Amino acid sequence: MTESVRERELIQKAGKAKTAASSLAKATTEQKNKALYAISEQLINEQAFILSENHKDLLAGKENGMSESLLDRLKLNEARIQDMADALIQLMDLDDPIGGVIDKWKRPNDLSIAQIRVPLGVVGMIYEARPNVTVDASSLCLKTGNAVLLRGSSTAIHSNKAIVHVIRQALEFSDLPKESVQLLEDTRRETTSEMFKLNEFLDVLIPRGGAKLIQTVVENSTVPVLETGAGNCHVYIDETADPKMAVKIAINAKTQRPSVCNACENILVQRNWASNHIPDLITALKEKEVNIHGDETVQQTGTDITPVTEEDYGTEYLGLDVAVKVVENVEEAIQHINQYGTKHSEAIISSSMDNVEQFFTEVDAAAVYHNASTRFTDGFEFGFGAEIGISTQKLHARGPMGLSALTSTKYVVSGSGQVK
Amino acid sequence: MTESVRERELIQKAGKAKTAASSLAKATTEQKNKALYAISEQLINEQAFILSENHKDLLAGKENGMSESLLDRLKLNEARIQDMADALIQLMDLDDPIGGVIDKWKRPNDLSIAQIRVPLGVVGMIYEARPNVTVDASSLCLKTGNAVLLRGSSTAIHSNKAIVHVIRQALEFSDLPKESVQLLEDTRRETTSEMFKLNEFLDVLIPRGGAKLIQTVVENSTVPVLETGAGNCHVYIDETADPKMAVKIAINAKTQRPSVCNACENILVQRNWASNHIPDLITALKEKEVNIHGDETVQQTGTDITPVTEEDYGTEYLGLDVAVKVVENVEEAIQHINQYGTKHSEAIISSSMDNVEQFFTEVDAAAVYHNASTRFTDGFEFGFGAEIGISTQKLHARGPMGLSALTSTKYVVSGSGQVK
Repeated sequence: MTESVRERELIQKAGKAKTAASSLAKATTEQKNKALYAISEQLINEQAFILSENHKDLLAGKENGMSESLLDRLKLNEARIQDMADALIQLMDLDDPIGGVIDKWKRPNDLSIAQIRVPLGVVGMIYEARPNVTVDASSLCLKTGNAVLLRGSSTAIHSNKAIVHVIRQALEFSDLPKESVQLLEDTRRETTSEMFKLNEFLDVLIPRGGAKLIQTVVENSTVPVLETGAGNCHVYIDETADPKMAVKIAINAKTQRPSVCNACENILVQRNWASNHIPDLITALKEKEVNIHGDETVQQTGTDITPVTEEDYGTEYLGLDVAVKVVENVEEAIQHINQYGTKHSEAIISSSMDNVEQFFTEVDAAAVYHNASTRFTDGFEFGFGAEIGISTQKLHARGPMGLSALTSTKYVVSGSGQVK
Repeated sequence: MTESVRERELIQKAGKAKTAASSLAKATTEQKNKALYAISEQLINEQAFILSENHKDLLAGKENGMSESLLDRLKLNEARIQDMADALIQLMDLDDPIGGVIDKWKRPNDLSIAQIRVPLGVVGMIYEARPNVTVDASSLCLKTGNAVLLRGSSTAIHSNKAIVHVIRQALEFSDLPKESVQLLEDTRRETTSEMFKLNEFLDVLIPRGGAKLIQTVVENSTVPVLETGAGNCHVYIDETADPKMAVKIAINAKTQRPSVCNACENILVQRNWASNHIPDLITALKEKEVNIHGDETVQQTGTDITPVTEEDYGTEYLGLDVAVKVVENVEEAIQHINQYGTKHSEAIISSSMDNVEQFFTEVDAAAVYHNASTRFTDGFEFGFGAEIGISTQKLHARGPMGLSALTSTKYVVSGSGQVK
């Protein structure tokens, strides 16, 4: 591609998305759901085409020495396409946030003010080699009346092109503009960098992927970013914690799915609880083949304990490793969490409501838990029916983001000739 | 100041603000209001000191050829200090948003989830030579449990140091840490640039001032920015507009206070309305000494009409100039507004509810008005009792921002041993 063609693609597609966004903002719930249904059907109708294009990416990936886990993320099959189609049908059932009245009131001068939900406009989505995100992002944006400019990985380009082709075929059977979904085919770094500065066309950028991708987007974008961050989550077992419950929650938070951001990386144990019950915790962790990094007290409980380091406390292992530290009290636990945590999900297991209250107030995190696993920080577990991601930033949206995270608001003011 | 001292000041003060933020997050409404009251009293007690320090800035400003209007913004007197003290007392009366439950629900697995309001943490405020912003920003941050790192103008440094000294004297009589309010005394550009990247300590940056300042912050910050933008606002007079009401609103929106962002810069007139009534509008504008930039139809109404240019349509005059354009219908008005507007405040004057509905849905702006002046886009006019600024961005807060714009949220989840 020559430079001018490259620039034309980015600007043209962003411009088309912006034009489509105006139509989308007016679309009814029925029109949007009809489009989601059409896409669901078309994904199944065209699955042979999608799978054969996906096969090209898989072959290239293997040739280029892509790891097994990355190849697995890249791979589509009939079951996975069926999952995508089913998710679209489920999305139809969710309430349409657009047009919803958040608040309304009347002023002494008789002006009526209403704050209503509106789409953001154009969403820029930057993600790694997971073709399911192409469907997921497009459908969540359409449901909320937003156009989307997709920038996927070059290693998934055939899959993404095929999926976007199919989505746009489906949109032609609907009342929504097919220009609502745009895929950037030029995935070069310098083009992505231009996307970071495309404030004229993009209302928000959402990076979905590893910490490095998110960091790059946050550090370089002038377009506002919806940041989904890392999770260095803790379970604090307080002095009065029920021993069985504490062990059950710690094991679940650590081992049920260690590779995700709401998994526990760090168990803090109050000293008196530890004196009586820490062997039970250690035994249970070892049964699950967890590699324990412990402080001196923990090391005394047996062999196979790796001495914990300062670095461990700041590490999101995303695997079967855990740091275990004995603390004196809830204050020390809170202080440790606020120092090393990533403000994601933090749990206290305790029977002392005073300590729970203090933990809830003083721990700075998107979600704080009492007597429950950190693994519940999830849009579906929270009952949102969809998830854009889990925000660890404090502006706009914090914690699991449902459809409303893809909306903005507008004040609608009705008068009868009022002037100031 | 040597380099190391300079760096120490920024990092030390940001660090102290962060530490103070932890205490502030726990402060009760009573404690916060007590602090606001103490500051109000201390401003009056120490006004001689503040005025004498302000006098130093004024003298330096005159010596350096500062303009009269800037000197006026910089100037404090007894009345202005009384205004600041009164505003603090009014702020005490406002509801404390912190701890408020936004929503709560129970999940089928019996987990109780509540979304509550919490402070943002540390607010970085970057502003121009207006010492009143020092009090305003500090008090709004304290009321919402946030610490603040202030970066004012070097031309107001004596005033700002005096005011912050007085605020911190008052905090010593309260239960809030005096470290809650930090003033950066080093106002060099390179230090401010470092502040843009201080994600470790700052949760948000708020620039208050001209378009250039805001642009610089938006384009260079990796810390999230609360953007208050320019207002190129329109009044559209529809075919069925009541002639007297239309002229009254257009005149008010244009002339009541032309220098502010919610003033009207552009009047769009439907052709049939124009045929009958445009002379009334032109006469009224001329009576207020407004310089009219008109299209060909408008030029035919008389002399003294400057031909309007493409550039005029995109200009926020902030003075007694206005662009007047004749359009065919509401669609053309909407299209013009979405092309040239800054998504701030847009009004339609009409008796056709269909056209109003279309205008409300299709105009992309923070506030849309029917039969009322754009001048009402204001935190006080909306009844918020305070105003952080008027956001023209779409994330976090849009339109006039009250206290809740300085808050984030936290999910508080209570269980009885639930695991996933």
